[in-house]
Amino acid sequence: MIKLNLKNAVTNSAINKFKKNVEIIGNRIENLESEGFEWLGWKDFPENIHPREIGDINQTAKRLLKQNVELLVVIGIGGSFAGTKAGIEMIQGEYPNKQKIEIMYVGESISSSNIHQKIVYAEEKNFAINVISKSGTTTEPAIAFRLFKKLLEDKIGIYNSTKFIFITTDPTKGSLLKIAQENKYKTFTIPSNIGGRFSVLTAVGLFPMACAGLNIEKILEGAKKANEIYKLANIDKNQAYRYAVARIILNKTLNVELMVQYEPQMKAFNEWWKQLSAESEGKNQRGIFPTSAIFSTDLHSLGQFIQEGKKILFETIMTVKEPDVDINVLKNEKNLDNLNYLSNKSIHEINKIAFNATTDAHVKVAKIPNIHIEFDKMNEESFGEIVMFFERAVTMSAYLLKVNPFNQPGVEIYKQNMFKALGKPE
Amino acid sequence: MIKLNLKNAVTNSAINKFKKNVEIIGNRIENLESEGFEWLGWKDFPENIHPREIGDINQTAKRLLKQNVELLVVIGIGGSFAGTKAGIEMIQGEYPNKQKIEIMYVGESISSSNIHQKIVYAEEKNFAINVISKSGTTTEPAIAFRLFKKLLEDKIGIYNSTKFIFITTDPTKGSLLKIAQENKYKTFTIPSNIGGRFSVLTAVGLFPMACAGLNIEKILEGAKKANEIYKLANIDKNQAYRYAVARIILNKTLNVELMVQYEPQMKAFNEWWKQLSAESEGKNQRGIFPTSAIFSTDLHSLGQFIQEGKKILFETIMTVKEPDVDINVLKNEKNLDNLNYLSNKSIHEINKIAFNATTDAHVKVAKIPNIHIEFDKMNEESFGEIVMFFERAVTMSAYLLKVNPFNQPGVEIYKQNMFKALGKPE
Repeated sequence: MIKLNLKNAVTNSAINKFKKNVEIIGNRIENLESEGFEWLGWKDFPENIHPREIGDINQTAKRLLKQNVELLVVIGIGGSFAGTKAGIEMIQGEYPNKQKIEIMYVGESISSSNIHQKIVYAEEKNFAINVISKSGTTTEPAIAFRLFKKLLEDKIGIYNSTKFIFITTDPTKGSLLKIAQENKYKTFTIPSNIGGRFSVLTAVGLFPMACAGLNIEKILEGAKKANEIYKLANIDKNQAYRYAVARIILNKTLNVELMVQYEPQMKAFNEWWKQLSAESEGKNQRGIFPTSAIFSTDLHSLGQFIQEGKKILFETIMTVKEPDVDINVLKNEKNLDNLNYLSNKSIHEINKIAFNATTDAHVKVAKIPNIHIEFDKMNEESFGEIVMFFERAVTMSAYLLKVNPFNQPGVEIYKQNMFKALGKPE
Repeated sequence: MIKLNLKNAVTNSAINKFKKNVEIIGNRIENLESEGFEWLGWKDFPENIHPREIGDINQTAKRLLKQNVELLVVIGIGGSFAGTKAGIEMIQGEYPNKQKIEIMYVGESISSSNIHQKIVYAEEKNFAINVISKSGTTTEPAIAFRLFKKLLEDKIGIYNSTKFIFITTDPTKGSLLKIAQENKYKTFTIPSNIGGRFSVLTAVGLFPMACAGLNIEKILEGAKKANEIYKLANIDKNQAYRYAVARIILNKTLNVELMVQYEPQMKAFNEWWKQLSAESEGKNQRGIFPTSAIFSTDLHSLGQFIQEGKKILFETIMTVKEPDVDINVLKNEKNLDNLNYLSNKSIHEINKIAFNATTDAHVKVAKIPNIHIEFDKMNEESFGEIVMFFERAVTMSAYLLKVNPFNQPGVEIYKQNMFKALGKPE
């Protein structure tokens, strides 16, 4: 289970002042009485997903593997790909060599250079397509889908291509559903009461994660176990809500939260968290600006600013208790690099010591508030748990900031501007 | 050439107030009279590098290619890898399929899981090693070098391995130089008057970039051409210094600079820039906190906060004038996705329109100051030019903040703490 350490961030008495408020909000969330409650479908989804749907997802992934599909082109933007990438990289690492079917993300940008590179990469491989979008009219994925659909049809023929195109969308409406029906593409469902950034534990994330070779039952198990605690409207027991309160207290004087990982394969997780946090809280001139780093890498970059620059941020540090693999530092007779003093240590031990030494330097010398979150392992159970932890936490913190966690009116402004400039018909 | 547009950021009259000051500082820089002047070697290095050194770098890269080396393991942290990665990805894209010799970066973290994955990835390939460190005693790369050296020796024998290990280090001192001499490894030079984060246009970056297949002469050409302008102590002519002044004006009320790219292959460039900026300016409780995003991807993430969250940031937007490739939006008879209204446009045109529409939404609606930098192409010349632009700019802005751009005392604090915790002998 996740261990939360707030001793370098806020006092217990400051937290306890939120006890009553958290209880009220927590109960409203549980009883679907809070603002935006119609988007709370994610909170019990791991319990509610039908075993038949899980079976269907797994079967389909197995079928693709049998048919020698080497690459799954996931077409989606925002919540339609960020959580999937977070899960796969956390569990399998940044190099795709552990992925049973390699996953490539497209439709998350409108760079012609980038899309072209991905077309060149895909066309030499046996590939399948998974388009993920609630409406099907979001510009970026719609452009990419037209291109990759054509690529696949040219490669294996229109008739065959229909067996390798999968649509994840709203079960009852939208143009993507129409396209699927018209072409007889297999569909997966985004429940209508779950928004994009809270959707990673639905088919949105589960299908591509299953294709990559993750055990999706274990992800859901981890989430369910976490839920037993993170649904409690009790600040003494619920670490997710406790973290939310700590952030809100720190946000009174500090505008930036730096999410720090000591494991490079958590980089995509940072990106998922940034969307979750920025879109849920950043409205009505409120919210914490979410940014991220990988240590020790970025100690040789942002580290200088953190240590001695302007005091505008607090840190949330995530470390893993047990690494995937540990390695000992090698001995060397000549010791020209003066490293033999470490040769009785493992690299993970050194990483832990780096964490402690850095925390000390940042907390004691620079007086930067520091939240520490330790999780068990970079595996499926922990991923499910962590997702639930942060989704619960950000929901609570948004309510504490008195904003609706589930809308994103600011994103619509740029979209409307763009549609106008592009001359989109009404 | 780079086009700088400040009309959505600061007024000309505000900038002109800095004219005299920029002239004084600029002349001090040119005459090596400014604080930290002993680290200004980078500023004329593209002019000063000996053609023999360029030839040697290119010859060595060619030799490796001939010997069927598939992978170059670059071992370094901070400035020893960030600029290289920035250049290679900017010019060749994020997928390594254009790299003549694939480049892998190690020694930039102490995650055992991460190092293990990279060992597994490397051991199946014909690989060479390039260790990059001024001193040779930085913990992260030193640990990685011991492991990869052993891996290579076990694979091809100690004698043969010496022909595939390359050391980039100080030409006159340090333990890495000793190791190279002892083992007869070929060496490249980090000039002693150039610090890590300013070293990408020396052998630090040039050798791995040549191995990846970049034309390093063209990179240096671009830098030299840029230098003709960016060395001028004249705010009317020198866009790099103009950008520096704009940042300092904005920093009076805003603490965060969000560097935004519309091309995903500029992601590693953002990381290089973050180090350059944070380490050069973030001291004495001063500096701008550098953070970054890729649009339109992150409009579906940070976008909400930028549009409607707390007003703590300004944006610096980089766009490319001419894409590597352009693609037209495909037509579709049925038009179920309502995208046919775009089918007379190219994707790069749409990306440009997205940029304009977003700038409008951020500037006019959200009142976020917005700096725009347009560069020509994602090629070698532009990379050299951009590097020189930002190195010049950050040097000026640091001096305007009255801090020494070339030291990093805050990084030493964590290092000393770590050495103490690890029990490093004196």
